[in-house]
Amino acid sequence: MKEAKFFGEVQVVATSKESNFTYIPKNYEIPPDAAYFHITSNNTIYGTQSQSFPKSPIPMVCDMSSDIFSRKINVADFGLIYAGAQKNMGPAGTTLVIIKDEILGKSGRKIPAMFNYQVQIEGGSMYNTPPCFAIYVSMLTLNWLKSKGGVAAIEEENIAKAKVLYGEIDRNPLFKGVCAVEDRSHMNVCFVMENPEHEKPFLKLCDEKGIIGIKGHRSVGGFRASIYNALPITSVYVLIDAMQEFHEKNK
Amino acid sequence: MKEAKFFGEVQVVATSKESNFTYIPKNYEIPPDAAYFHITSNNTIYGTQSQSFPKSPIPMVCDMSSDIFSRKINVADFGLIYAGAQKNMGPAGTTLVIIKDEILGKSGRKIPAMFNYQVQIEGGSMYNTPPCFAIYVSMLTLNWLKSKGGVAAIEEENIAKAKVLYGEIDRNPLFKGVCAVEDRSHMNVCFVMENPEHEKPFLKLCDEKGIIGIKGHRSVGGFRASIYNALPITSVYVLIDAMQEFHEKNK
Repeated sequence: MKEAKFFGEVQVVATSKESNFTYIPKNYEIPPDAAYFHITSNNTIYGTQSQSFPKSPIPMVCDMSSDIFSRKINVADFGLIYAGAQKNMGPAGTTLVIIKDEILGKSGRKIPAMFNYQVQIEGGSMYNTPPCFAIYVSMLTLNWLKSKGGVAAIEEENIAKAKVLYGEIDRNPLFKGVCAVEDRSHMNVCFVMENPEHEKPFLKLCDEKGIIGIKGHRSVGGFRASIYNALPITSVYVLIDAMQEFHEKNK
Repeated sequence: MKEAKFFGEVQVVATSKESNFTYIPKNYEIPPDAAYFHITSNNTIYGTQSQSFPKSPIPMVCDMSSDIFSRKINVADFGLIYAGAQKNMGPAGTTLVIIKDEILGKSGRKIPAMFNYQVQIEGGSMYNTPPCFAIYVSMLTLNWLKSKGGVAAIEEENIAKAKVLYGEIDRNPLFKGVCAVEDRSHMNVCFVMENPEHEKPFLKLCDEKGIIGIKGHRSVGGFRASIYNALPITSVYVLIDAMQEFHEKNK
């Protein structure tokens, strides 16, 4: 929104800011006279995810950086999908854009060549020197995904991973989830502890068990378990074991 | 120039376009009332290189993508230096910018955060998710350069490589250089054959000897030997041997 304001008028059609972004807004109106409607499919910081998308009367532009290739989507519903590689596709340093032909070339604005999708398409995505390594590793990752059965298969795995982890959060009296149950992310599982004084010792236990990067974003606090495609369910069980062990010790 | 025109008035102060860019213009005037003076230190396509830089009354902005870290420069002479990593620093996908504090924050324009140097500086070059692999390999490459004696040592090597190769081009009657002798690049050595019919068979000989990527850019034709830091002088000798062998066969 901050950046879009440099180039036009921005209207916020829905937000859950008032509750620190703990749910995905629903039943909002998309202005039919706007140029496009922008949505982010998964919120890595607060751990919410759109489990379905609205019907949009105007082109829907979606930032899928953090959940692309993690679940089936109907690509045709979107005017434009964009995603940084670094969650489920490959190393940081390359970006994927899927765009409908019919929304190309509609901006009257002079656009620098590097940011002009038409120029990139005409250049076969090689208008500039491409970041070969990031693209190459993305190909390897997508081959790996295919060999596992593709997006449909990984979606089932991701649902299973999320289910067991949220299950423990809901069962274990020391922990609680931070988001509306129906909007819980299958990629980033955010949770806090009923007793904030437990957070430091639990973080220490995680560290001892080789669980890293579990600390929540500073704007939410608590914990965030990122369970992207690359993380096997066995790693989720390591975290669940730590939660159960901590509960046993602190009953 | 094409891109700069989107954002302001562009004045060409010097060009060698009339001779297909075979020399570096000298003795031109830099307008003292312009916002900045832009120069590219090395031309990879035509094989010319600025062996010295003008004194500029306004901030000098230099694209050093293709010769940074290949020779000593006086950084203080430049307001801003920018370079893609992919020639002498590391893999494609990251960029280096050296900027003088005093020229920061002087644009009245609203700049998207990603392109705002002030924002990048404040974020420790991590405003966005950094392309870690490209940065990491750049570090390894710079460590390698240091271990060889740094820029001063590699400059001597680069001069030696260029000297023997241009020496053969000038000595061998089948070949000729395309650029003004004093402006010859130490990174990209461009040459053609006196008899254009020799080019295909020479390319074939190169291929047999494992010399790849020697074909010149389509706008120049002929040959282009890129002899960046990573290329050892022994590889230059392989090319010289091929040139001499071809001469022996075609006397």
